[in-house]
Amino acid sequence: MARLNSFYLNKKNWQSPYQLDEEESKHFIKVLRGKKGEVIRLFDGYGKEGLFKVQDISKKRVLLEPLSITQHPEPENKIKVALAWQRAKNRDFILEKCVELKCWEIIFWPAKYSPPFTQEIKESWLKKIINAGKQCQNPWLPQIKILNSLEELTNSNSEYQKLFFWEKEEKNLLTKISLEKNILIVIGPEGGFAEQESTYLKQKGFTSVSLGSSTLRLETAMLIGIGYIYLFLESST
Amino acid sequence: MARLNSFYLNKKNWQSPYQLDEEESKHFIKVLRGKKGEVIRLFDGYGKEGLFKVQDISKKRVLLEPLSITQHPEPENKIKVALAWQRAKNRDFILEKCVELKCWEIIFWPAKYSPPFTQEIKESWLKKIINAGKQCQNPWLPQIKILNSLEELTNSNSEYQKLFFWEKEEKNLLTKISLEKNILIVIGPEGGFAEQESTYLKQKGFTSVSLGSSTLRLETAMLIGIGYIYLFLESST
Repeated sequence: MARLNSFYLNKKNWQSPYQLDEEESKHFIKVLRGKKGEVIRLFDGYGKEGLFKVQDISKKRVLLEPLSITQHPEPENKIKVALAWQRAKNRDFILEKCVELKCWEIIFWPAKYSPPFTQEIKESWLKKIINAGKQCQNPWLPQIKILNSLEELTNSNSEYQKLFFWEKEEKNLLTKISLEKNILIVIGPEGGFAEQESTYLKQKGFTSVSLGSSTLRLETAMLIGIGYIYLFLESST
Repeated sequence: MARLNSFYLNKKNWQSPYQLDEEESKHFIKVLRGKKGEVIRLFDGYGKEGLFKVQDISKKRVLLEPLSITQHPEPENKIKVALAWQRAKNRDFILEKCVELKCWEIIFWPAKYSPPFTQEIKESWLKKIINAGKQCQNPWLPQIKILNSLEELTNSNSEYQKLFFWEKEEKNLLTKISLEKNILIVIGPEGGFAEQESTYLKQKGFTSVSLGSSTLRLETAMLIGIGYIYLFLESST
């Protein structure tokens, strides 16, 4: 079967009569030139996924008839990624890859060597996440959190295995540690962690792991590190 | 010690009197505003690396005095990446990441679902590779090869462990196989392998491995797959 087109429906609008919101309707009608009778995939980002048949199309609305709806359970294994605040140019890439690799939560925190910090979760980030979710077909989308400090991060998440990528560590992710089921991984800014930050993380029980001898760009480090954890969790379910 | 600025010097020009070529000289003088007496790092992409002191600067030439030169041995473990020919928009990213992850060879081959194929290795690709090499400080740069068919690929490389990422495989890279020291990994085009291609690879002794249940974009698949192999090889040296 060819892959069905995916559409996002906000959790609070997931109810009868089912219909696509204005933007998704426009996309269905104008971009995809969708027709009455077509079957589409709908998801809410909270594990709900369903097949729907297009019942009626009006100018800004696509009315849907549910064929089957599934509520996927919360995944048993979770990855939380705590990224030091970074330059905007990498943000879309980071958000997209976290969705593809099934991250449960994306946390931004202000590191000493971060560029100026913002507290606001932008609408465009959520759109990026939704679009990535359509592409990779994960029914769960990551939540975004913004924290004020590293302390806030370390004082919660007690049931998570705690790691951080550190260029001064010698042993790499594969050698140093055996992964558990729920993992919180802290990633520093482009300039690396300040000494007080790495010391603090270690005091709080975080294990430092290296990503090998190459000097990796931030997005490469993030992607191969989380990628390995994703592959590990996928292989153990 | 702060990281030294890196410059590339072609293998055939790596001889006394040492000097930067015109482009690198311009970069040193105009962009970095380098000065006489400064120490820089030079590499040739074939394992040669050295520290040099700037002896003299003229308009288009930077004359260098060697302080120390090292010839790094060929790495014991090698990764060859055979990528189906892909859209140009991903090419720079792919080349850069292969350098960061210390790939030994980047091979392009024309898959059935590839866009129109070109036989020409572009000057801009080599520049991208050199720039990535400056960033990640690997003394070896990958070679680029263009093959006419999958047959050419399978008929050589006998001493390499042969893998391909395949979305129809159930077991993932971590579960299915234990990695050896030299690895050739084949990556399909965005549309996936044609059936005759995957069948052919299996006949030729290639092992298919999955990258988990998420539908990954080509660049994500490439990066997390090669990333794991890179981490593995780094952990075993």
